[in-house]
Amino acid sequence: MNGSELTVKIKEFLTPQSESVFPQRRPMGDERFGDIVLRFRDLQYATKLPDAAIIGVPQDIGVNRNFGRTGAALAPDAIRRAFYKLTTFAGKTTLSADKFSIVECGNITVEGLSLEEIHRRQEQAVWLLLKAGITPIILGGGHDIAWPNGQALAKIDASYGVLNIDAHPDVRPLDAGKGHSGTAFRQILENKENPLPTGAFVEFGIQSFATSVFFLDFLRSKQARIVFYDDIRRNGFDTSVRDVFDYLASKARSLYTSFDIDSCASAYAPGASAPSTLGFTAEEICRAAYIAGKNPAVRLIDIVEVNPNFDADNRTAKLAAIMMAQFISGLAERKFGIN
Amino acid sequence: MNGSELTVKIKEFLTPQSESVFPQRRPMGDERFGDIVLRFRDLQYATKLPDAAIIGVPQDIGVNRNFGRTGAALAPDAIRRAFYKLTTFAGKTTLSADKFSIVECGNITVEGLSLEEIHRRQEQAVWLLLKAGITPIILGGGHDIAWPNGQALAKIDASYGVLNIDAHPDVRPLDAGKGHSGTAFRQILENKENPLPTGAFVEFGIQSFATSVFFLDFLRSKQARIVFYDDIRRNGFDTSVRDVFDYLASKARSLYTSFDIDSCASAYAPGASAPSTLGFTAEEICRAAYIAGKNPAVRLIDIVEVNPNFDADNRTAKLAAIMMAQFISGLAERKFGIN
Amino acid sequence: MNGSELTVKIKEFLTPQSESVFPQRRPMGDERFGDIVLRFRDLQYATKLPDAAIIGVPQDIGVNRNFGRTGAALAPDAIRRAFYKLTTFAGKTTLSADKFSIVECGNITVEGLSLEEIHRRQEQAVWLLLKAGITPIILGGGHDIAWPNGQALAKIDASYGVLNIDAHPDVRPLDAGKGHSGTAFRQILENKENPLPTGAFVEFGIQSFATSVFFLDFLRSKQARIVFYDDIRRNGFDTSVRDVFDYLASKARSLYTSFDIDSCASAYAPGASAPSTLGFTAEEICRAAYIAGKNPAVRLIDIVEVNPNFDADNRTAKLAAIMMAQFISGLAERKFGIN
Repeated sequence: MNGSELTVKIKEFLTPQSESVFPQRRPMGDERFGDIVLRFRDLQYATKLPDAAIIGVPQDIGVNRNFGRTGAALAPDAIRRAFYKLTTFAGKTTLSADKFSIVECGNITVEGLSLEEIHRRQEQAVWLLLKAGITPIILGGGHDIAWPNGQALAKIDASYGVLNIDAHPDVRPLDAGKGHSGTAFRQILENKENPLPTGAFVEFGIQSFATSVFFLDFLRSKQARIVFYDDIRRNGFDTSVRDVFDYLASKARSLYTSFDIDSCASAYAPGASAPSTLGFTAEEICRAAYIAGKNPAVRLIDIVEVNPNFDADNRTAKLAAIMMAQFISGLAERKFGIN
Repeated sequence: MNGSELTVKIKEFLTPQSESVFPQRRPMGDERFGDIVLRFRDLQYATKLPDAAIIGVPQDIGVNRNFGRTGAALAPDAIRRAFYKLTTFAGKTTLSADKFSIVECGNITVEGLSLEEIHRRQEQAVWLLLKAGITPIILGGGHDIAWPNGQALAKIDASYGVLNIDAHPDVRPLDAGKGHSGTAFRQILENKENPLPTGAFVEFGIQSFATSVFFLDFLRSKQARIVFYDDIRRNGFDTSVRDVFDYLASKARSLYTSFDIDSCASAYAPGASAPSTLGFTAEEICRAAYIAGKNPAVRLIDIVEVNPNFDADNRTAKLAAIMMAQFISGLAERKFGIN
Repeated sequence: MNGSELTVKIKEFLTPQSESVFPQRRPMGDERFGDIVLRFRDLQYATKLPDAAIIGVPQDIGVNRNFGRTGAALAPDAIRRAFYKLTTFAGKTTLSADKFSIVECGNITVEGLSLEEIHRRQEQAVWLLLKAGITPIILGGGHDIAWPNGQALAKIDASYGVLNIDAHPDVRPLDAGKGHSGTAFRQILENKENPLPTGAFVEFGIQSFATSVFFLDFLRSKQARIVFYDDIRRNGFDTSVRDVFDYLASKARSLYTSFDIDSCASAYAPGASAPSTLGFTAEEICRAAYIAGKNPAVRLIDIVEVNPNFDADNRTAKLAAIMMAQFISGLAERKFGIN
């Protein structure tokens, strides 16, 4: 597949990105992600496919169905604005368009569509990217977007696994057959069409006083692994992250990592649909994003539940942007074989 | 004593709790503290007395007298709103009404009363609970509420000790014979009627640039132990907390632990009467609350100086709520003999 | 030189400080920095020169030229208001006017002046203080003030070195020959009149995604040392700070340490011209300020880029105030030979 073929196939699911999220070019030498990212309109001319793709899902229908605070629909552009201003210096590497190509695909079309119709479009777009060997970085939106993300990967590789980094398990029962921002991992675990390999689902960061035994019991009945927040604090963050990736490597070949921003403490991530008092530091979640980027099995990530309506001077959008940058720098190191 | 007898005795000091702080019941299985807490109106039917009781003191008269920023009067309900939404899963245990009973007593009546009259009611209510073997969790209000809390415990057990977790010592001289939010521990240390056993008072977390030598000298003259914030950072938080409980165990049989929210850094606790730049993390203060809950000597706690007027999206009220939950989970583990 | 002579020389560069930043005197014994600081108008009567001097540079012209968010002009008074309320108890010492004297000089005159004219005044005022053996504590303002600060020290001691604690390197090319808040260290490194000794410049805390290789290459071409944020996290904060001071001791005799508040994470320092997602904690930056105070080579510091327009309940101004207090307590320990 080349850029032209991919463009033809994927464009029906997408709404073009407004240019307003890209910063004006800076004085000489000061390159930003906004300078190196491939605009979707130029993908058709690309002879080589990009390494990674950014797609937003600007809706909070699932959050609303779950009686949460709406606002996540605004997250993709808020995160992009912060991300495209970041410089491309990444410590061990410097990102550049020729060595590591990232395409900004814009958003999944949501206008006037039901959550289910949006999810269908999202699943197909993500599936197309995965099939083309591109790593999708999906910006929610509510955590409901994990359901189509999981399905897209499942259809690419039956040996797939899911890591949810979250304060909450998000395995609520569906409401009159309809999913929402609290149901995605139940949908994935109960899906008969594309069954998850046994044990290939991990909840990472589940907090006391933020879930019910009812849901933990459901998870155990599905052979899911639960890594509690308290245990992560006891064992150390880095060790815990590496352990969980080692574990998943023994269960599945292709991994999807979902980052719920409320896995972070509200001091670092105030702009969340449901902010958490306790939780990871900005430092920690960025390290997890970097580790996910380097991990050869990770093929897809998302960052969900950022809520600009409750943010403080874009602190949370900036955190998500740095997470993206860290993930991408990990991906680049993976590609270049840097250790 | 049974629930009916306690109700008759204590109700004259209390104002019933508005139901608005309790969340609507969640979908099946998702139990919250609001679902398991005993309403005060139902205490009269209880054949067994509760394990713990929640009482608010919704006034900031003492803060105002101390020239502080008012707003702490709003704290009890703000904290309750966050607390009753928390789920009952507590890591090693799950709280349930039948195994560990908590009663919501509502507030000490404050309407139209002087600070001294409010304190008298508070002391009597707390004394009644302690006498009934119930662990009171008192939500301030300003730190002046430590004075009646200390007296209530003193009248139950002459071998009583006090641990104040705070950035400031709160041992100012009284103002024309009147206490305020900065005087409570001087009142306790100088009280001749119910003298504190020698050495049974500890100030924990006192910060440089937040107190005067004048007050430290007073504390030393009273054989109080001062654990400075800088030393806690040097020695480690958990070690320091455990050391102080070990020390107090050698000085007194019954302990009262007072948590001033300004012992925490303002990043975690912005909604405080007098926020602190440096201070404990949310993580740390919650661990201290849990350790206090497990400690067999601790019979009474309070959480004071939360100020919703300066809070950020209820971050501080939520922190106080998690502290309550952690304390309660420690209490439950103490009761069940869990290690 | 005595107080009278210094007053005569320095006063032409200064605008007197408004009394509104000083708190009313507290009840007995509760001494604040506002109580012990020497007012500039009283400097003329001082028989002994002060140990340290506070000067503000209330302008954000350089921030504006650099397309940053203005507001730093308000920082000096916001920081002073927080600082003068702090008590004088400093752990190992207690500051007092007779043992350690601090003079509040007010602000460099900025009214109606160009950035270049302000810088000239600042350089001369700082030079006069340094020459008198007084340690200047300069409150920005934008980071452009590092240029005159560096020059003032260079003219006192040719063996001078500079430590910039910052998320960004601030070595942008000048704009049509004019400096701004992003150029100061390029100006210092390229200055032929007062050349920096080889290797005597360190950038400490430079973050990935916050600088360009273009600038890092410039720094390397000038033999500057770059201590990356990621390496500080790997090696530990205290060790990294001590290492950098050891390194600089081998390169220069007199040191200037510049603290950009955006070296701290936005959770701790939200009120910054350009807040950083990642960065030092309040705890860490205060420890660095204290270590700088104790270091016998440090003769001058500044704290820059605090922006009250974006602050949260003065959190950042208070952080800068505690940094000042920590630096001063280090200075006092240096003077008294306390280890």
